Amino acid sequence: MRRALELAATPGVPHGPNPRVGCVLLAPDGSEIAEGFHRGAGTPHAEAAALAEAGAAARGATAVVTLEPCNHTGRTGPCARALVEAGVARVVFAQPDPNPEAAGGAQTLRDAGIAVELGLLEHESRRLNRAWTFAMERGRPFVTWKFAATLDGRSAAADGSSRWITDEPARRDVHRLRSACDAILVGTGTVLRDDPALTVRDEVGAPADRQPLRVVMGERDLPQDAKVFDDAAETVHLRTRDVAAVLAELHARGCQHLFLEGGPTVASAFVGAGLVDEVVGYLAPKLLGSGRNAVADLGIESITDALDLVVEDVTVLGSDVRITGRLRGKD
Amino acid sequence: MRRALELAATPGVPHGPNPRVGCVLLAPDGSEIAEGFHRGAGTPHAEAAALAEAGAAARGATAVVTLEPCNHTGRTGPCARALVEAGVARVVFAQPDPNPEAAGGAQTLRDAGIAVELGLLEHESRRLNRAWTFAMERGRPFVTWKFAATLDGRSAAADGSSRWITDEPARRDVHRLRSACDAILVGTGTVLRDDPALTVRDEVGAPADRQPLRVVMGERDLPQDAKVFDDAAETVHLRTRDVAAVLAELHARGCQHLFLEGGPTVASAFVGAGLVDEVVGYLAPKLLGSGRNAVADLGIESITDALDLVVEDVTVLGSDVRITGRLRGKD
Ligand SMILES: NC(=O)c1ccc[n+]([C@@H]2O[C@H](COP(=O)([O-])OP(=O)(O)OC[C@H]3O[C@@H](n4cnc5c(N)ncnc54)[C@H](OP(=O)(O)O)[C@@H]3O)[C@@H](O)[C@H]2O)c1
Ligand SMILES: NC(=O)c1ccc[n+]([C@@H]2O[C@H](COP(=O)([O-])OP(=O)(O)OC[C@H]3O[C@@H](n4cnc5c(N)ncnc54)[C@H](OP(=O)(O)O)[C@@H]3O)[C@@H](O)[C@H]2O)c1
Repeated sequence: MRRALELAATPGVPHGPNPRVGCVLLAPDGSEIAEGFHRGAGTPHAEAAALAEAGAAARGATAVVTLEPCNHTGRTGPCARALVEAGVARVVFAQPDPNPEAAGGAQTLRDAGIAVELGLLEHESRRLNRAWTFAMERGRPFVTWKFAATLDGRSAAADGSSRWITDEPARRDVHRLRSACDAILVGTGTVLRDDPALTVRDEVGAPADRQPLRVVMGERDLPQDAKVFDDAAETVHLRTRDVAAVLAELHARGCQHLFLEGGPTVASAFVGAGLVDEVVGYLAPKLLGSGRNAVADLGIESITDALDLVVEDVTVLGSDVRITGRLRGKD
Repeated sequence: MRRALELAATPGVPHGPNPRVGCVLLAPDGSEIAEGFHRGAGTPHAEAAALAEAGAAARGATAVVTLEPCNHTGRTGPCARALVEAGVARVVFAQPDPNPEAAGGAQTLRDAGIAVELGLLEHESRRLNRAWTFAMERGRPFVTWKFAATLDGRSAAADGSSRWITDEPARRDVHRLRSACDAILVGTGTVLRDDPALTVRDEVGAPADRQPLRVVMGERDLPQDAKVFDDAAETVHLRTRDVAAVLAELHARGCQHLFLEGGPTVASAFVGAGLVDEVVGYLAPKLLGSGRNAVADLGIESITDALDLVVEDVTVLGSDVRITGRLRGKD
């Protein structure tokens, strides 16, 4: 299963709507017959790739796969069927398929008399496809809220200026995180104030091939010539202040991972509604003493009612510090 | 010189007004004759300790010492004289003595025909006696400002509660830092609101043998039964809001390292006056959305005018993160 997870995580697989899956076919003596992994939407599933490599040798083999073999006919046929037809004797998988449309593969296999085991390294498989698993299970995108603030918690100075709080390495890191998401969201306030491009760019400013959807929420009109309306990426302006409605709309558009970039008003609306799952704070070693706080009022009165995070990572990036945390009680 | 610095840093030397100094006596062939270090006020200086160990063997030797040998008669005689009398041929030292009363040792040695070299590993010697060097050179204590805040920069909740923002490991760490200082300062606001003890205690709450001076600044009267007035340590209430006057008073009392513990009003007064040299921020992975900021108004309008720090250390302590920084442009 470790090898199957390694295959699933093969670098270079483009970011897309499908989970990353790896599969290893083992002979009864435990030796490896074939392996495969999913290379992205429209290409063969991991099991299909491994079966194609194995050919007739798959008969009587054990298939070790990171995700429950799918049961539905999408762009490729159902993998559970393919495993049955290839004469595989046993299937071991890490994570049950959380997608209601694709689930049921284990049952199909059992019905065909194949021995099925599950749960091995499930945690690792879930992590590998964290946003996908979350979106399938909860019916909404996984939300990462990113903010940049000074050591005293200000995300803009008294005059509203916030460029640049952090240095180049932290800003490059933001582009890296953006590129791993499906959509980037800000409120109308940030567009009107800062006119950000919200695209993924490399060190020399060249745009990446794949760009996340740009989302602006809020009721006000935006100027036609705002940078978010340029041709660099797709943009949608959702004329609402209802954060749950925004997530539902993004889910319907296939967004599994939302990167929430602010500003403080919109971020606080998400945090206050319990709709932030992960927080990435870039703290610059600066003191301002005044200006906007990274989070606005959440209705919390006392220190004992503060929202708790679990710190998952602390990294020094150039002169800044990045702290990543998960909201407590979240998966 | 490395060995002399090691000797100077020998663990167990009690915190006191004197610098840490180490000395090694070398024979003309480079072999070691004797070594010594200063064990604190009232005990022999490093050079005296090494000369005593060497006896007649010191004649013609090279003395390697971390600090310029002193030239004045304090509780012990001047070391420069002692080195001359012992017949030492050459003296190498790391750091010139910044104490105007004790300086001039190098000249005394040269006048006696002894070869003198200086500057070897000076930076390391200065670091070892950072607060002492600073206080001698600047005529005021080195100021470390400590604060505890949530990830969104709040050091108290909307209702004023701030206990506890950080967890046990961070709070223990504060006691460790307190114990390395000469005085701990807060404003009247913190005493009136939190009634802190401001003592150094171990894990089970037992007080340390040596306690820093407790200092409260501000004009208001304090209740006689405030914890800072108990017998656990000495306390002084300075009825002023003038931070420079407070530092002058503490300097006159022999305080070389001040630990500034807040609250936000007093901390901002020090920061705003450019009288904070080091910042230690304990960041708890919590979000409050409202409440007091760690620093109050500093008169800074724009992000380009923010006070810059250089991050020197980032450490995870239990669930919290400690960030230590020096004010830019400071030694
Ligand atoms: N440091 C950082 O990480 C960071 C990141 C982003 C922005 N900023 C700074 O933040 C400042 C902008 O702050 P901001 O708070 O105005 O920006 P914002 O949160 O992007 O926009 C706020 C606006 O969004 C609309 N909105 C959408 N949903 C809402 C809801 N649920 N509740 C309330 N309003 C909602 C409202 O305008 P409508 O009337 O149009 O509905 C509201 O005025 C700028 O100075 C920017 O530089 C900092
Ligand atoms: N999270 C932390 O690290 C931390 C640390 C300490 C305190 N706190 C919290 O901070 C809150 C107390 O805040 P605070 O700001 O009132 O406390 P403070 O800074 O300790 O005290 C403020 C008072 O000190 C006096 N003062 C002395 N020098 C002054 C100056 N240069 N300028 C203005 N006033 C001066 C003033 O009172 P007079 O009228 O008497 O002169 C002023 O009201 C409490 O909730 C406490 O829990 C948090």
